[in-house]
Amino acid sequence: MSSAVAYGSVYVNQRCFREDRAKSSKARRVCVCKSVTLTPQSLQYEKTKLLMPEKSVRIGVLGASGYTGSEIVRLLANHPYFGITVMTADRKAGQSIGSVFPHLATQHLPDMIAVNDADFSNVDAVFCCLPHGTTQEIIKALPKGLKIVDLSADFRLRDIDDYEKWYGQPHRAPELQREAVYGLTEIYRTDIKDARLVANPGCYPTSIQLPLVPLIKANLIRSENIIIDAKSGVSGAGRGAKEANLYTEIAEGIHSYGITGHRHVPEIEQGLAEAANSKVTVSFTPHLMPMSRGMQSSIYVELAPGASVEDLRQHLKVFYENEEFVVLGKEKEVPHTRHVRGSNYCIMNVFPDRITGRAIILSVIDNLVKGASGQALQNLNLMMGIPENTGLTYLPLFP
Amino acid sequence: MSSAVAYGSVYVNQRCFREDRAKSSKARRVCVCKSVTLTPQSLQYEKTKLLMPEKSVRIGVLGASGYTGSEIVRLLANHPYFGITVMTADRKAGQSIGSVFPHLATQHLPDMIAVNDADFSNVDAVFCCLPHGTTQEIIKALPKGLKIVDLSADFRLRDIDDYEKWYGQPHRAPELQREAVYGLTEIYRTDIKDARLVANPGCYPTSIQLPLVPLIKANLIRSENIIIDAKSGVSGAGRGAKEANLYTEIAEGIHSYGITGHRHVPEIEQGLAEAANSKVTVSFTPHLMPMSRGMQSSIYVELAPGASVEDLRQHLKVFYENEEFVVLGKEKEVPHTRHVRGSNYCIMNVFPDRITGRAIILSVIDNLVKGASGQALQNLNLMMGIPENTGLTYLPLFP
Amino acid sequence: MSSAVAYGSVYVNQRCFREDRAKSSKARRVCVCKSVTLTPQSLQYEKTKLLMPEKSVRIGVLGASGYTGSEIVRLLANHPYFGITVMTADRKAGQSIGSVFPHLATQHLPDMIAVNDADFSNVDAVFCCLPHGTTQEIIKALPKGLKIVDLSADFRLRDIDDYEKWYGQPHRAPELQREAVYGLTEIYRTDIKDARLVANPGCYPTSIQLPLVPLIKANLIRSENIIIDAKSGVSGAGRGAKEANLYTEIAEGIHSYGITGHRHVPEIEQGLAEAANSKVTVSFTPHLMPMSRGMQSSIYVELAPGASVEDLRQHLKVFYENEEFVVLGKEKEVPHTRHVRGSNYCIMNVFPDRITGRAIILSVIDNLVKGASGQALQNLNLMMGIPENTGLTYLPLFP
Amino acid sequence: MSSAVAYGSVYVNQRCFREDRAKSSKARRVCVCKSVTLTPQSLQYEKTKLLMPEKSVRIGVLGASGYTGSEIVRLLANHPYFGITVMTADRKAGQSIGSVFPHLATQHLPDMIAVNDADFSNVDAVFCCLPHGTTQEIIKALPKGLKIVDLSADFRLRDIDDYEKWYGQPHRAPELQREAVYGLTEIYRTDIKDARLVANPGCYPTSIQLPLVPLIKANLIRSENIIIDAKSGVSGAGRGAKEANLYTEIAEGIHSYGITGHRHVPEIEQGLAEAANSKVTVSFTPHLMPMSRGMQSSIYVELAPGASVEDLRQHLKVFYENEEFVVLGKEKEVPHTRHVRGSNYCIMNVFPDRITGRAIILSVIDNLVKGASGQALQNLNLMMGIPENTGLTYLPLFP
Repeated sequence: MSSAVAYGSVYVNQRCFREDRAKSSKARRVCVCKSVTLTPQSLQYEKTKLLMPEKSVRIGVLGASGYTGSEIVRLLANHPYFGITVMTADRKAGQSIGSVFPHLATQHLPDMIAVNDADFSNVDAVFCCLPHGTTQEIIKALPKGLKIVDLSADFRLRDIDDYEKWYGQPHRAPELQREAVYGLTEIYRTDIKDARLVANPGCYPTSIQLPLVPLIKANLIRSENIIIDAKSGVSGAGRGAKEANLYTEIAEGIHSYGITGHRHVPEIEQGLAEAANSKVTVSFTPHLMPMSRGMQSSIYVELAPGASVEDLRQHLKVFYENEEFVVLGKEKEVPHTRHVRGSNYCIMNVFPDRITGRAIILSVIDNLVKGASGQALQNLNLMMGIPENTGLTYLPLFP
Repeated sequence: MSSAVAYGSVYVNQRCFREDRAKSSKARRVCVCKSVTLTPQSLQYEKTKLLMPEKSVRIGVLGASGYTGSEIVRLLANHPYFGITVMTADRKAGQSIGSVFPHLATQHLPDMIAVNDADFSNVDAVFCCLPHGTTQEIIKALPKGLKIVDLSADFRLRDIDDYEKWYGQPHRAPELQREAVYGLTEIYRTDIKDARLVANPGCYPTSIQLPLVPLIKANLIRSENIIIDAKSGVSGAGRGAKEANLYTEIAEGIHSYGITGHRHVPEIEQGLAEAANSKVTVSFTPHLMPMSRGMQSSIYVELAPGASVEDLRQHLKVFYENEEFVVLGKEKEVPHTRHVRGSNYCIMNVFPDRITGRAIILSVIDNLVKGASGQALQNLNLMMGIPENTGLTYLPLFP
Repeated sequence: MSSAVAYGSVYVNQRCFREDRAKSSKARRVCVCKSVTLTPQSLQYEKTKLLMPEKSVRIGVLGASGYTGSEIVRLLANHPYFGITVMTADRKAGQSIGSVFPHLATQHLPDMIAVNDADFSNVDAVFCCLPHGTTQEIIKALPKGLKIVDLSADFRLRDIDDYEKWYGQPHRAPELQREAVYGLTEIYRTDIKDARLVANPGCYPTSIQLPLVPLIKANLIRSENIIIDAKSGVSGAGRGAKEANLYTEIAEGIHSYGITGHRHVPEIEQGLAEAANSKVTVSFTPHLMPMSRGMQSSIYVELAPGASVEDLRQHLKVFYENEEFVVLGKEKEVPHTRHVRGSNYCIMNVFPDRITGRAIILSVIDNLVKGASGQALQNLNLMMGIPENTGLTYLPLFP
Repeated sequence: MSSAVAYGSVYVNQRCFREDRAKSSKARRVCVCKSVTLTPQSLQYEKTKLLMPEKSVRIGVLGASGYTGSEIVRLLANHPYFGITVMTADRKAGQSIGSVFPHLATQHLPDMIAVNDADFSNVDAVFCCLPHGTTQEIIKALPKGLKIVDLSADFRLRDIDDYEKWYGQPHRAPELQREAVYGLTEIYRTDIKDARLVANPGCYPTSIQLPLVPLIKANLIRSENIIIDAKSGVSGAGRGAKEANLYTEIAEGIHSYGITGHRHVPEIEQGLAEAANSKVTVSFTPHLMPMSRGMQSSIYVELAPGASVEDLRQHLKVFYENEEFVVLGKEKEVPHTRHVRGSNYCIMNVFPDRITGRAIILSVIDNLVKGASGQALQNLNLMMGIPENTGLTYLPLFP
């Protein structure tokens, strides 16, 4: 990504008709123009993107054998600037992506290696898809020039005492924690642009904060007694072989889990507290559902004195009007998780409650996209100065 | 069921060793003794049941082509006293049960007929599994001597103005409404025993009232601000051909529906108000899930001043101690809908909330069994003076 | 139902009202008579069963923490004579059944222990639900007086060389192998009655041999070029934590597995060869499906010269006419796996093929019931001299 | 992107910044270059595409309210040249796409109108997604200049007597039938390029012919006794409200349907007969599975004398070497339907059978993409002279 070329159109031609691509069959690539939605946020990048050669940003995917890792690969397949040059997966080192994820077998990608064997001189930015707890040391050891989006929970909590309390071990990279920017894109966009290390939000916190933060900031809802009943697809539990996640244990049923103790609680409360400018304690009960992808948060709130459901809807409408990925449904339209499957959208809506002075807020995302890898890509796009929807314009897959 | 025989054991032998059974092959039946759990409630029936000949109660199933109707047939297959003599299904008149429900094809049952063609002189009791709205006229026309368990919503609301408000039409059998007993078995058992017409509760109201009614009566929770987030399997929507319930529209997703307007609301509020001795307004949001059977109600409540989560658990434990079908889980045990699938159990538990002064109550049932046909059978058992668990001792089917 | 017999009744009373059970609440049991279908096979047991006290056969379940073990527990819950006194599960030793299988928590059963700690002096018969390979040594060490139904593959292959070839290790109990009777109930009923050790068939072999063995024996189909395309639910893979069986890896897809090499092949070929009186080689391709229970075998065969599809149907009809659990569908009726879910039925049918001289045979079972624990119970009933349908009269659970 | 240089850039500007779209925020579009796999087939289009303005081909979607219609919309969302200008859906006339398919609500598309109200002067090409039978008259009435890809079965059978025999009515547009080209892209590419009317293949025929046609043409397998056991997701049945396709009727089970009589039979036999140069009769048994998308054909064949499984693999490898969408798996690799979900790939492989002289061929597609709308787009790309993978480079969505 070093030697940027200066003059737009000629450059485009260069990209599209490099002669060196006329040789091998399937590996060759040709440039096809596609149209993508243009939002005010991305308008400013127009110049930038023309200066960037195709696949010129060299990407490392750390922990490529899990679901968030494979989702990064899926999203980058049609990304014009980001090309994967390093993939790590300690337990699957030496294997091809196709042997670990056959649905990606058509991609021409480097084999997976152990993270300790990775050569980062060949990398401009990394998606870190490693398990919680192991990530701090690994990121500490990365070259300082790398841009990093960390999909684990390791840098999400600003207070490292909170981290120790909820994760049962002291934080091993407090200086990085201070540097890390929380990657809820629509809320922290300005900081993310300039960040080197972004802590990508958890799936539940994304689906919950996107509607609540603007409403709390605008004093439209009370920050007490927020009741969150959330429902998640199974992919959120990862690809680890656990009895509890077998098909036979999950199909045709539902159950709550992590009642009062789910580790996303401090992350949610941190975000809401910042919006409220005071401590917030939420009721948060996640449920596991027989679906692979998707997440719904049903949020039961008390209206601020004088506020109406229509006020809430109106505020969210204005707040997200120019956002591509956050959509307020039409009045009375109920969002379904299947309406965002495979896409980076968050659809939300607000409904009156039967109890006077209360409202019901529904918010749906795909936990692997806007709840993980999609938002991570959105953030890295921002950090690299390209339109933040690049590579993210897939429509939902339904049915 | 008329000429009851007086002396237990001899009579049993009559049943078990009929000589006339040595002829036809599959239709013949032999009596095998089985052991069932004995609860204090059922103890009193010990003598009664010995006086009742096998399959001596002649049952009519009105609306046998729906899921609650077929579930009645399934449950009665192993019932010692109840034998089906009439089955109606207007649109499937003339068809065998096996052609409508192939999983029941091994049963020897009368073909379905139109309800207007049914001869009720041959019937002692009916399960009425007809759609809401049509039921009032049909039940009005039934012979007065019949015992009736109505699985529709037509007689659940004591206030016929409520009925008109929520169902959009005036109630057409107000005198029957006055007679009807609400069939939440564990709460209204005494009245049900003597009832002629029982209004079988809805699935959501069953799962919600079973934990809440005792707690409200005991003043352990406040009756304000009760937030109910409920999740149902698709069979609750019936067997009608609707686009919204196609496999492709339901699989791999979740959505809320009927927000603020679900017709089970007045039924829930009626039961809670009676317990509280004052008007109760609840927040109730049902969700449709990709599972055929099962229902979970996640209920978020405020503790009464001075009450603790342990008080709630202790009260429910004592209240349901001698009940066979209502089970309080061990401390911290999370109930799953799949743990009750196909059975008449309701499993519930209480958990502390993160927010001080609040508790989380979880309650799971199979919507077609305890939420419909199972509770209906439990009620008719009671009404006929036999042990209320008769025919209901199936364990859950898992996985 | 007229002529009452005198001596039986006294006995029944004894069973049902033993005083020693009048104490604790839920644990007490009362005897309720239920009617079950009487087939010619079971007629002969009428006297026997009257002489047998309730729950008088003491059952051990070895390997109770897997799906076939839990299914035995489910089926025995309503069995009048078989009571579980020992349950083993090495890795879950010390745990209650309710902690391992919460859907069985209402049962009053002994805690699980390590198999080496089991006291078999307290046991009359065992269901051995252990993994393949480990079973031979354990059964060898059991007291000789025990009746054993082994659900593993360890004693299914009569030729121990076949065992070594397909399982990669020498057979460690060849003398027991000689004694073992193959437990395909409807085909080997006479031998099973007198057996001490029954090798319970695999699920695929059950669904395949039930239709094919009679047809081959009657020379109605050729034993060459039998093509079997089979589809199984995931519970057949057991409860072991494997990545390949996670919900996310199974939902919404299908794939073949074990092509040419599935270990059920020698068992299938052994049964068909015996029927054909000559070596048989089949084409067998199993598929894994997103369903927990259920199995369909679609079998493509060549008609014997002169035979017609109607001949095949007619022969199966006569052959299984008096069987309770094997059902030939009506002409053109397509069996569904969901029509047998949770039950011990096998439903089969025969269809003409477009290619002249060929037929299509479809056969469905619940892999955990007729394909495993149900057939095991059917066999032990036979071995103990009681009606073979005892405890097996559940109807399928649908939807 | 301000300072436009040279010939390319001016052109780009034309496409990307047409003034008429510079107003509303979300509707504006900017052009982002993306890289797509270049295959020899598409190389020739390089120049063509540069001459084509963005979204310059005006597309009509007839029957936009069904699943194949909505899939066309999904695929075109990122297509650089095809823009939808007309959408018809008689029963949903007047509705927006978002009200019929909420997952497409973010798209800016014309409302649906009745097909009789459509103005085709505004249209260059149509995807006809109407039901079988109604399509002939409608296509007959379309302006002659339109390019048409018909996704119904109405023009797939070259012999109109076959059509009448299998569809029960005479063909009403025999002259169009003579003109129609069968759109199995990889086999009939040359004809498709020049076609005006393409009959898009059925899903089963696509998955079956792609592996079989080359093998039969090369005389590597016999064309007699081809046994096809196929499994389909439910979306193949469309969005019509039918009891048989309710979630409750489909989940957790499998069944065969259309045995010997499925309407895809003549289409399959037509294709294989052409390859074999003689009449072919196949055994074809489709099965309905609990999955929304996906299709597997398991095909059991007899090897031609002297041919080996390796010969088959080698021939398919060479035959499809330069194809982007047809992939031969590595030796022994089993294709899963979930590895192609949402994508236009067909993955196939060949396995030895246990029976000497036989082979097993597995082929998987997404029935809505390569089995319907994806292949339709592939065909229209060809017909319009642009790279045939345009808009089709989505990777599969897994999990």
